[in-house]
Amino acid sequence: DAENPGENKETVTADAFLAFDGIHSVMRKKLVQDEPVASSYVAYRGTSKLAEDPEMKDLKSVIGYIGPSVHFIQYPLRGGELLNQVAVFESKRYLEGRATGEIPEDWGNPEELDQAYGHCDQFIQDRLHTLWRNNWWQMSDREPMENWQIGRMLLLGDAAHPPLQYLASGAVMAMEDAEAVAIFASDAAKAGNLNWEEVLAEVEAERRPRSKRIQTVGRFWGELWHLDGTSRLIRNELFRQADRTGWFRYADWLWGYDAARREYIANPEKGEVPAELAEWRYALLEAPQA
Amino acid sequence: DAENPGENKETVTADAFLAFDGIHSVMRKKLVQDEPVASSYVAYRGTSKLAEDPEMKDLKSVIGYIGPSVHFIQYPLRGGELLNQVAVFESKRYLEGRATGEIPEDWGNPEELDQAYGHCDQFIQDRLHTLWRNNWWQMSDREPMENWQIGRMLLLGDAAHPPLQYLASGAVMAMEDAEAVAIFASDAAKAGNLNWEEVLAEVEAERRPRSKRIQTVGRFWGELWHLDGTSRLIRNELFRQADRTGWFRYADWLWGYDAARREYIANPEKGEVPAELAEWRYALLEAPQA
Repeated sequence: DAENPGENKETVTADAFLAFDGIHSVMRKKLVQDEPVASSYVAYRGTSKLAEDPEMKDLKSVIGYIGPSVHFIQYPLRGGELLNQVAVFESKRYLEGRATGEIPEDWGNPEELDQAYGHCDQFIQDRLHTLWRNNWWQMSDREPMENWQIGRMLLLGDAAHPPLQYLASGAVMAMEDAEAVAIFASDAAKAGNLNWEEVLAEVEAERRPRSKRIQTVGRFWGELWHLDGTSRLIRNELFRQADRTGWFRYADWLWGYDAARREYIANPEKGEVPAELAEWRYALLEAPQA
Repeated sequence: DAENPGENKETVTADAFLAFDGIHSVMRKKLVQDEPVASSYVAYRGTSKLAEDPEMKDLKSVIGYIGPSVHFIQYPLRGGELLNQVAVFESKRYLEGRATGEIPEDWGNPEELDQAYGHCDQFIQDRLHTLWRNNWWQMSDREPMENWQIGRMLLLGDAAHPPLQYLASGAVMAMEDAEAVAIFASDAAKAGNLNWEEVLAEVEAERRPRSKRIQTVGRFWGELWHLDGTSRLIRNELFRQADRTGWFRYADWLWGYDAARREYIANPEKGEVPAELAEWRYALLEAPQA
């Protein structure tokens, strides 16, 4: 009970403790004293009935519009019953507040939402009214951490590796984590050698480089989507040429993953920024802060 | 005689007047009152004996190193006798002066040369000493102009269309201009219809869209070479993939030209910024000036 941690205590005995307690993890504090890193981007979303939307009613896949400092995503939920729409934009008030040292609590508020899309296509602007305006998400991640384990406790999911949302891999990673635990424990048990501390160490060794890669590429991907000027035109040309260069070459590491292959244990440097991006630095962390 | 235009006058009578009098053209003033547009980039060059340079002695082609705000070019001259090296960089003092309204006359001076390459590979830094330091070129172009002709006078070469140097097409364009005059006049003469005013109008119609394209793409190309950060990495990836997408697709319009085809007369919109770049604006002109 987070509000009254002293009350309603119950002692549970288990072989292992998998701490899947989210980006604001309590258990993470046992290992590291760090804070979420705000991205300056904020997300709004809203759902509506897909069948009632004449322009969207046949939507089967994900549509993403990307532009300078904004993007807009549309996809069906619940087998086509609902249309989910997500608007993400950079909060100028967050950036200004960061520069002066006084970040307003409501950065990314609805007034900023309307302003942020002023340079966009009318189709996008017309869809902003479908979004819920009383709730928005200030997008944050955390720096990759170097140790997730204390004895038979292991941090997992967002508690260990909260990413930005760009690769849509936050929940996916938590499921990959769980599968890795299941596979590695099962393999150990079959070998007659189920030592939980060792199993969790193996899970960490496999999962830590991979989640670091997702966290890092997620930051890069966000910058890539939101470029402006000459850079934006170059990005567009690279995307246009992707069918000639092989669409999947940039993504197969992400979606072709199978924990059973233990490929990050064999090759932990897979988690590092690839050579082609080695000089990349997350601009938000490079920028001067107050 | 530019210094004493009133002295040593000589009257020459000719059928046509081709004004190839350079970027600071006197004749251009008869048609338009404009000024060169400084690019904020400056060029240094130097030659040395190719055979005496152990790292370069087998050089047959052009090598270009590109980086944030700088580039460096090496190529042989005089059939391999000389090595020509060119260093081009952005003058911070020019940009600062532009912002304050007081541009120093010696922007891009040798002190700036040394500073500008501080972030570069040691190989490049070690070659800066080969450059002549008592002379440097503050690189400028001009906006494309809409009319090159008065009666039987036509502006040509840099007088009509001085470009930035990035496509190495300044002298090439002057030769293309001359060839267009020769071809079109010859064709008219063969048809028994050599009217110089009409010939020059035809030359202008062919050459004006093409040189506009070279001037515009030259500015874009400079920005492309000098990108930094995420944009630079995207540019590098686009260049790396160029063999998969067809190396020549971005350049065949430039080097596959033949004035005799009159392709810009047939299709003047070939001179416009292509659709993929339609939203590009030359950043230096967009930036605030004092």
